[in-house]
Amino acid sequence: MKFLQTTNPDFDQQLAAVMAQRGSDTQSVAGPVRDILQDVRKRGDEALCAYTNRFDHMDITPVQLRVSRAEMEKAASLVAPATMDALRLAAARITAFHEAQLPEDIDYTDAAGLRLGMRWIPLDAVGLYVPGGKAAYPTSVLMNALPARVAGVKRLAMCVPTPGGQLNPLVMAAALLCGVDEVYRVGGAQAVGAMAYGTESMKPVDRIVGPGNAYVAEAKRQVFGHVGIDSVAGPSEVVVVADANNDPRLVAIDLLAQAEHDEQAQAVLITNDVDFAHQVEKAVERELETLTRRAIAEKSWRDHGVIVVVRNWDEAAEVANEFAPEHLEVMLDEPRQFAQAIRHAGAIFMGRFCPEAVGDYVGGPNHVLPTSRTARFSSGLAVHDFLKRTTSIETDGEGLKAVGPAGVTLAREEGLDAHGLSMAARLKALAEQGQKPKA
Amino acid sequence: MKFLQTTNPDFDQQLAAVMAQRGSDTQSVAGPVRDILQDVRKRGDEALCAYTNRFDHMDITPVQLRVSRAEMEKAASLVAPATMDALRLAAARITAFHEAQLPEDIDYTDAAGLRLGMRWIPLDAVGLYVPGGKAAYPTSVLMNALPARVAGVKRLAMCVPTPGGQLNPLVMAAALLCGVDEVYRVGGAQAVGAMAYGTESMKPVDRIVGPGNAYVAEAKRQVFGHVGIDSVAGPSEVVVVADANNDPRLVAIDLLAQAEHDEQAQAVLITNDVDFAHQVEKAVERELETLTRRAIAEKSWRDHGVIVVVRNWDEAAEVANEFAPEHLEVMLDEPRQFAQAIRHAGAIFMGRFCPEAVGDYVGGPNHVLPTSRTARFSSGLAVHDFLKRTTSIETDGEGLKAVGPAGVTLAREEGLDAHGLSMAARLKALAEQGQKPKA
Repeated sequence: MKFLQTTNPDFDQQLAAVMAQRGSDTQSVAGPVRDILQDVRKRGDEALCAYTNRFDHMDITPVQLRVSRAEMEKAASLVAPATMDALRLAAARITAFHEAQLPEDIDYTDAAGLRLGMRWIPLDAVGLYVPGGKAAYPTSVLMNALPARVAGVKRLAMCVPTPGGQLNPLVMAAALLCGVDEVYRVGGAQAVGAMAYGTESMKPVDRIVGPGNAYVAEAKRQVFGHVGIDSVAGPSEVVVVADANNDPRLVAIDLLAQAEHDEQAQAVLITNDVDFAHQVEKAVERELETLTRRAIAEKSWRDHGVIVVVRNWDEAAEVANEFAPEHLEVMLDEPRQFAQAIRHAGAIFMGRFCPEAVGDYVGGPNHVLPTSRTARFSSGLAVHDFLKRTTSIETDGEGLKAVGPAGVTLAREEGLDAHGLSMAARLKALAEQGQKPKA
Repeated sequence: MKFLQTTNPDFDQQLAAVMAQRGSDTQSVAGPVRDILQDVRKRGDEALCAYTNRFDHMDITPVQLRVSRAEMEKAASLVAPATMDALRLAAARITAFHEAQLPEDIDYTDAAGLRLGMRWIPLDAVGLYVPGGKAAYPTSVLMNALPARVAGVKRLAMCVPTPGGQLNPLVMAAALLCGVDEVYRVGGAQAVGAMAYGTESMKPVDRIVGPGNAYVAEAKRQVFGHVGIDSVAGPSEVVVVADANNDPRLVAIDLLAQAEHDEQAQAVLITNDVDFAHQVEKAVERELETLTRRAIAEKSWRDHGVIVVVRNWDEAAEVANEFAPEHLEVMLDEPRQFAQAIRHAGAIFMGRFCPEAVGDYVGGPNHVLPTSRTARFSSGLAVHDFLKRTTSIETDGEGLKAVGPAGVTLAREEGLDAHGLSMAARLKALAEQGQKPKA
């Protein structure tokens, strides 16, 4: 853990050094991932089975790649009713928030007489990657599948590795809750390749979303362009901005909630009170003792944890913007006022009763958020990721008369004869024959 | 050129073969691009000058990388007044359409008492890549810079190669018109690297937009994740859907307006009338004779041109969706009705008086559009590309009481202790002490 203070003359360099450590460098696995993708593209199901059997210690043939509806239902039946209720509450809240995101089409005729439009159209098919093993989170399924459903995507295909052949009951229950019944027991780069290029048993999709390890992230990067992807997810962060009027234990727990995700995760406290900072530091040590995932959380906090003591909240906002964190908790009396100064954050959690975990599960907004400072230029998952825009221009002769001559001028300046001619020939036809450009 | 008919029993395979040829494979330059990017990252300005001097036949030192305002103004002063008027008309129309795109924030409190929000925030800094040489198009500058301006981006940096040292007057005039005065005479992968990582004389940006050759496209792909990019642009297409009630010459010119861009460009006619198809084919041959860029247009038409004769407009829509073209012209009596069946197209041009070139210059919607069938999952450039979304959740004790227990259940099921505890500890504090979670 690094303890920084803005009063230190070297603060800027110290902060820069912390930032330089972040980032999602998947270059080291680029070669193996390229090989896997090529192999899946070439050998299809055969390659999928080979990798799955090797990496997930299984023994399947192509007909077993897809998880049957009966298998899904059997696994899902193991989920306790209270958990199903919680999943349903989460699903309803996520659906409601993403419905509020649905954007409006544009359609207007301007003064020149051109009718201009923009229509949002759902993607045909989306692939959801769901990590297996220790990170098999049912709420990931909800957060990726429900926005696609709300957007109107017809086909959702899901890939989830099942190490040792075990289906995760919660993941299957979540998939069924979202109406996803096209599920494949495949993970890693091979799953990404199958979704991008298709195999005998898996039709290709148009966009791949969902978190994954470095292989999955690099595979998504490599198939990008052939299909769309959501983002290349890196290690995740929280920045907690808190004054001394908070329980240090609650702040410590919130920091550890980030740290327990992953050894590479980063938990940051920004406070204006050095004594409070030390109290939180001690509380972290105490709370660490109680956690099942202590080893992970402890390593994350030791290696990547940061406490920054600032002189005032303006400085705090500046430092928070520098981190451009995935998650920002604002535990102040006027959190909304503080949030006005935030330019870069995936999601903001305001108030002393709003830990980030609320957003992970039951808040409503998406928990798939830009990590590793990418909030500078990217956004959390939303219905927009499952829609695309088609613009349109409609004009008759009058509209063309209004804007065409300027178009012809520009086309000629750019040396594009046929561009100019496509407008000029119509303008000429209009001048000679009135409205109809038919020869 | 390929002449296909849906009545042919092999039509599906023939169409699939045409599609398989498309795509933006930049793999072949991946190695050289990686070297250039690493070199720029390591040696900064020195590398930039070396590549610029080598590729653009120049002899500059780092102080000359940036084009001065005086140089820009001097170059821009060479543009004819009528051309400046045309550029201003285009700029005004592009600005107006992109202002209509500005999305609304979300802010509401739901029945459970959680205040949920989503705020659109402009990016801090954007880099515009503008191709040099034969493809130095001033309207590219407008189409990339104006949406960023409308979105509220404060810093716009532009890179444009200047082969032989010549500044393009139109490009400089367009940049000044958009208020862009941070311009560097650098192109290729080295420009992308400089914008992504920064050098001594160029601060890094958060997102890079703009078209370019295979090196630029591959460089954008490789820096993606470190910064945002718009898309990996490939060869461009038009699909013209036309009935026999059109002048074959106008259709031919529209096809050639696409073909003259690039030898890899693809122009496609879909019609329901085989005689009309042959008339267009002949008209293409005649019009080719007249074009300055005949060699390019001819090669594009020979290698990539397609005529598809369909039985009816439903088939036409299906085939058009299969192409998922960058540009779709609908030259029918009821173009809007036909367009309803289109799921995949970057932009649609409706009516017999609306050639695609209107959209290239003076329509208003963006001309930076998804190419090579990527309209299946991506969109043309818009203000959305220069904004990002930050979601927010605000809740007091009552809101947490409403949703927290379900959150605790899910966190425990996912084995994330601290996540559960961050909510459970607050719920406990609320139960014991009323509203304040302070210990």
